[in-house]
Amino acid sequence: MPRTFGSISAVPPGAIFNSRRELADAGVHRPLQAGISGSGAEGADSIVVSGGYEDDADYGDVVVYTGHGGNDPGSGKQVADQILERGNLALARSSDQGLPVRVVRGAGGDPAFSPASGYRYDGLFFVAEYWQDIGKSGYRVWRFRLVQDQPSANETPAGGPAPGGDPGVKYSTVQRVVRNTAVTQWVKELHDFVCQVCGERLQTDSGGYAEGAHIRPRGRPHNGPDVIKNVLCLCPNDHVRLDRGAIVISDALEVVDRRTGTVETGLRLARGHRPDLQFLAYQRSLWK
Amino acid sequence: MPRTFGSISAVPPGAIFNSRRELADAGVHRPLQAGISGSGAEGADSIVVSGGYEDDADYGDVVVYTGHGGNDPGSGKQVADQILERGNLALARSSDQGLPVRVVRGAGGDPAFSPASGYRYDGLFFVAEYWQDIGKSGYRVWRFRLVQDQPSANETPAGGPAPGGDPGVKYSTVQRVVRNTAVTQWVKELHDFVCQVCGERLQTDSGGYAEGAHIRPRGRPHNGPDVIKNVLCLCPNDHVRLDRGAIVISDALEVVDRRTGTVETGLRLARGHRPDLQFLAYQRSLWK
Repeated sequence: MPRTFGSISAVPPGAIFNSRRELADAGVHRPLQAGISGSGAEGADSIVVSGGYEDDADYGDVVVYTGHGGNDPGSGKQVADQILERGNLALARSSDQGLPVRVVRGAGGDPAFSPASGYRYDGLFFVAEYWQDIGKSGYRVWRFRLVQDQPSANETPAGGPAPGGDPGVKYSTVQRVVRNTAVTQWVKELHDFVCQVCGERLQTDSGGYAEGAHIRPRGRPHNGPDVIKNVLCLCPNDHVRLDRGAIVISDALEVVDRRTGTVETGLRLARGHRPDLQFLAYQRSLWK
Repeated sequence: MPRTFGSISAVPPGAIFNSRRELADAGVHRPLQAGISGSGAEGADSIVVSGGYEDDADYGDVVVYTGHGGNDPGSGKQVADQILERGNLALARSSDQGLPVRVVRGAGGDPAFSPASGYRYDGLFFVAEYWQDIGKSGYRVWRFRLVQDQPSANETPAGGPAPGGDPGVKYSTVQRVVRNTAVTQWVKELHDFVCQVCGERLQTDSGGYAEGAHIRPRGRPHNGPDVIKNVLCLCPNDHVRLDRGAIVISDALEVVDRRTGTVETGLRLARGHRPDLQFLAYQRSLWK
């Protein structure tokens, strides 16, 4: 049976299930044991948040979810490093691809957001971000920040003829949001919209186009500050590469391809703007 | 006096003003006549939507706003082509940069969303998109799709030390949203996340990263369909360039730098996926 991404037509958010068996039979979350449903090749279609991991954090519309592997099922404590494989790789792929993830909360989770008993389907989330972390027990864990998806105000219903290739259940989810602030704007203007990594300047009818990238990411749980020393002026491609850990920046301000360790180039600098080494170290710590 | 982007601290959304003079004195919209406040170099900080242009359309959380120039002030009818200059260029710049625009509605606008009398400040919008169009009177107009801004669920307050360079009033607005659908996902997988324009494939820990670009844009007023023949697999840089009209695609499926007319490359194709020529023509019509 093909994996179904997106909503299950008969199941509205808020639906309650008494057991993992009922969840599976409804097609909301098929595995009876695993918290993550998915494969590294396809992505993750659903997760169950039930407090099994000591490092999970639930904020309601944002869930910081810990990958699987390396934990003791009895205590929930980590006893070994986690690897980016199986369900973890599936969630990473969902993030890179912008795939929707059905989120189910179980009674064992944070009492503020979890059902009193059984399991509740809480709708579609997107995986805004993923990174490595050292868990409370000192072992490496993979973490995923899932954000509740909301249809955008400028979205129309899909409409039009059915496409070839049958992509199965329809969905529309956020793959990436680029925000701009007074601080990122200042940095972009200082660099005249030239990418500090590759030197490219995208040209539009209004001038240059660039994006302000926060080195230590904003938002829970990183809470990187929106300050000039935490922002780079990047082209969209290098912004994605920084956010996804494809590149890191050394204390010598060299841009390094993280997979190969090769120095690609030196970071382009402008007078009055140098990144703070503590933020560079934080970004490297997410991916080393 | 420097131009202020973002909220005016003393003025909440919903505030009513009796006259353009009061609006100007409050710093919400400084010009007494012009509908657009801004400059091509800095961007637009505010607009007044008051039904002066026959081509405006108000949907509440989305405003399709017509640029200035070429209209007869008495009738509101276009009598000449509009040019991307002054306020029009300012709004284009706000779009490319992700700057926030204060939106004021006047009593002359769409009765469903406008105040009964005077002017109402309706909060911050971002310029999701801009393009050329032929107006109702047969002349060229510039159009801007403004979308009401909402703080993202994963946003934390700015915090941290005040940056150098004093960017003035703080704001955080959406510069760009990339959405993914079952249809765009199908196209991305078919191309194995290789950009159909430049051939680049961004590599992350989970595999390739690419974006599905709708050739005829989605959303009002374009209402391009979410179908395979309207989608290209692009790297983020070329996605921005397509959306901003920096590149167009000929019926011979050549990628053309619109400003110079130079053919950059042929569009990379995959078996079972060819863009529909009507959608290519539509995208070209937005920028010719």
